[in-house]
Amino acid sequence: MIKAFIFDVFGTCVDWRTSVAREVAAVLPQVDALAFADAWRAEYDPAMARVREGNRGYIALDDLHLENLKTVAARFGVVAPDNLNAAWERLDPWSDVTSGLSRLKQKAIIAPCSNGSIALMTRLARYAGLPSDCILGAEIARDYKPKPAVYLAACAALRLDPSEVMMVAAHNGDLHAARATGLKTGFIPRPTEYGPAQTTDLSADADWDVIAHDFNDLADKV
Amino acid sequence: MIKAFIFDVFGTCVDWRTSVAREVAAVLPQVDALAFADAWRAEYDPAMARVREGNRGYIALDDLHLENLKTVAARFGVVAPDNLNAAWERLDPWSDVTSGLSRLKQKAIIAPCSNGSIALMTRLARYAGLPSDCILGAEIARDYKPKPAVYLAACAALRLDPSEVMMVAAHNGDLHAARATGLKTGFIPRPTEYGPAQTTDLSADADWDVIAHDFNDLADKV
Repeated sequence: MIKAFIFDVFGTCVDWRTSVAREVAAVLPQVDALAFADAWRAEYDPAMARVREGNRGYIALDDLHLENLKTVAARFGVVAPDNLNAAWERLDPWSDVTSGLSRLKQKAIIAPCSNGSIALMTRLARYAGLPSDCILGAEIARDYKPKPAVYLAACAALRLDPSEVMMVAAHNGDLHAARATGLKTGFIPRPTEYGPAQTTDLSADADWDVIAHDFNDLADKV
Repeated sequence: MIKAFIFDVFGTCVDWRTSVAREVAAVLPQVDALAFADAWRAEYDPAMARVREGNRGYIALDDLHLENLKTVAARFGVVAPDNLNAAWERLDPWSDVTSGLSRLKQKAIIAPCSNGSIALMTRLARYAGLPSDCILGAEIARDYKPKPAVYLAACAALRLDPSEVMMVAAHNGDLHAARATGLKTGFIPRPTEYGPAQTTDLSADADWDVIAHDFNDLADKV
């Protein structure tokens, strides 16, 4: 019996690529906005890796995003305004997310378990209309997924055993880490998260507890 | 310009006294349920004081409530089932709360800043229909109000300056502490929180930034 659904956000709930590109295009018309969005996102995991590996203390994703923005802007030969960093608070949801999460919320507790900070998830949820009961994720654990501490901190914050909690994500790697810490797992593919030429996470690569085509299908199946 | 409203919950949003008494009456029909609820609540502040004063590490309010339940049950000469502790997750809201908070949510970020844990606030919000954008409070700070750290941790989690955040409470002491850390303050009286003979917090005892008669009146005034 699942008592809480926790879910990834970037990619799983929201289309960060076209949304960030839209924001980039509005303030940096001279650059290839999709290429800029891809380059910015490509710095995401290496930046978190430095925290995960203990090479720097926990620092919120908002701050990592701003550091990465400066790095990428310099590479593109432009100076980006700091407030472009708020692009990550204005990401459009995939069309099934608001209805599907609303249905899951009728069944159990729902909460994002993202690498985004509480501030970032709060503002993004207001922009995108993402329902939730509370915000879990990296800031609660002061570490980044896929470190086990993040999934375990989410369960601990809800005072639930990991076996009572399902992690939902569009990324097999996220689910492998969640399963390794004892959580249930739900997979939803987002085959255009990285654009039309995406080659990764096109389908489930393990026997996840639920494999659905979107959040509404997941709500039907649980 | 207020960018977030954070609010107290026990007493300010929900009528803990009659709700806890109802839960007590259901499982301990032999005791005076209101007297039991009052006695249980009377152990609340002393239990948190031991954490605030550094005499024990942070422990979630759920656990303090359970310790206090055993203490009070022994005093009443009964053995209380552990699951009576979940009474604190089933507290009825005052009649203005759901509509008033919904209106505030249209204006700015809203979040509980309670001494309740994330788990307790999550379940209580689902029971009572309390809207919010995220859950802040004691667990984020790992300390208890009215320690300054709790208000400051709430502002930090939202990446806002304290001057951009209004603390709303039915307790003057909560607001004195919030003001001392730089937050704006909003007072709502709850003159029957402690029953018909209540003598404290019947009115504002300072020039709070907003003094309203309920959450809807507060939404009108900000």
